[in-house]
Amino acid sequence: MAKGRFITLEGGEGVGKTTQLHALADALRGRGLEVVTTREPGGSEGAEAIRRLLLEGGEERWSAPAEALLFAAARTDHLDKLIRPALLAGKWVISDRFLDSSLAYQGGAGGLGIAEVRAINAFGIGDTFPDRTLLLLHPEGAERALARDGDQSDRIGGRPGSYHLAVEASFRAIAEAEPRRVHLVDAAGSPQEVTARLLAALEDLL
Amino acid sequence: MAKGRFITLEGGEGVGKTTQLHALADALRGRGLEVVTTREPGGSEGAEAIRRLLLEGGEERWSAPAEALLFAAARTDHLDKLIRPALLAGKWVISDRFLDSSLAYQGGAGGLGIAEVRAINAFGIGDTFPDRTLLLLHPEGAERALARDGDQSDRIGGRPGSYHLAVEASFRAIAEAEPRRVHLVDAAGSPQEVTARLLAALEDLL
Ligand SMILES: Nc1ncnc2c1ncn2[C@@H]1O[C@H](COP(=O)(O)OP(=O)(O)O)[C@@H](O)[C@H]1O
Ligand SMILES: Nc1ncnc2c1ncn2[C@@H]1O[C@H](COP(=O)(O)OP(=O)(O)O)[C@@H](O)[C@H]1O
Ligand SMILES: [Mg+2]
Ligand SMILES: [Mg+2]
Repeated sequence: MAKGRFITLEGGEGVGKTTQLHALADALRGRGLEVVTTREPGGSEGAEAIRRLLLEGGEERWSAPAEALLFAAARTDHLDKLIRPALLAGKWVISDRFLDSSLAYQGGAGGLGIAEVRAINAFGIGDTFPDRTLLLLHPEGAERALARDGDQSDRIGGRPGSYHLAVEASFRAIAEAEPRRVHLVDAAGSPQEVTARLLAALEDLL
Repeated sequence: MAKGRFITLEGGEGVGKTTQLHALADALRGRGLEVVTTREPGGSEGAEAIRRLLLEGGEERWSAPAEALLFAAARTDHLDKLIRPALLAGKWVISDRFLDSSLAYQGGAGGLGIAEVRAINAFGIGDTFPDRTLLLLHPEGAERALARDGDQSDRIGGRPGSYHLAVEASFRAIAEAEPRRVHLVDAAGSPQEVTARLLAALEDLL
């Protein structure tokens, strides 16, 4: 059986990742593929338990390096229990966020260093690297997330504009360093238009 | 105020680490030092929560890399919340197990690689490295642990003799690579004799 493909959707708040996760999965199923959708942080039982640990307590509960190690442990479990088995069974896996979110948020914008955060994650990821990462870019993403969440935005979504600019700059730097894996996708326009661009960015894998 | 000293006790099961933790702390207090004793895994609220997560479920609950990342996250919290603040307050800290146990058990005997496990731990440890590590060696440690625990030995203590030999070989390899930090201490003889040897191995720091 063919090994499945591992696709990740990345980008800042409100750029349309979760909307496109489902639209893209449906489009790929329409082409006869078996598709599993998942998301981070979380995605497996152990990863969800770690996620609850991360959300307990206030800002001071975990230092930035402790938090980054917990995210890396959660990602390892997500790979072990859900992503790798699905790929081995020939399925496509699409994840709403993955490694690059840790690199951009904790490594770049958070100041831990992209290379350093990459190293601790590489330990658990091994060679199960995404076959393609679709980086969604939308200038009004942060505003859309605010309109979506109102006062309910979490402690990351609620950070100031300068933080979100640093996240986007980090995502772009990662994409520049790995142009074969990470493709930039303009997320403006109707959901259908964006899905068509995402599919075009996967054409060589189909 | 002088920065405190960070001392770790390492070695296989039953060599006398926990017995000597208390004896050594008392001896140092007798010299007028403020001493904090602690242990791994655990030692802080966050680290204990991670430890509970590690102990939940069976052998299959966490893969070896996920477990190693969780141990590294717990150690980071232990450093952040207990060890570093105590050292900054001028206290001595003695920990019953620390980094080298992860290197020997997961890295060496467990097959993840000593250098690889060191790298993920270095991320959280930064420059708070032990000033001295006392590696206790006792040929009948495993038998003593068995006599102490009976049927209650945990899933590491209950592993076969070949595993414990691999752990000891890994500890010795770490000591050879870092002879200034890691001192080998013969743990045979009465508890008092062993404490005297440990104190002698700290003499240059006093
Ligand atoms: N192409 C689009 N045009 C208009 N609104 C959109 C589009 N895609 C998503 N949205 C809306 O924008 C908000 C953010 O989209 P969402 O998929 O939740 O983004 P993300 O998961 O990246 O944070 C939601 O309210 C969603 O309904
Ligand atoms: N010097 C010693 N002589 C004899 N028995 C000892 C000595 N030190 C410790 N023990 C006993 O050996 C067992 C293992 O000691 P312990 O301190 O629990 O080891 P560890 O913490 O390294 O597993 C315990 O039952 C302890 O009472
Ligand atoms: Mg979303
Ligand atoms: Mg003990």
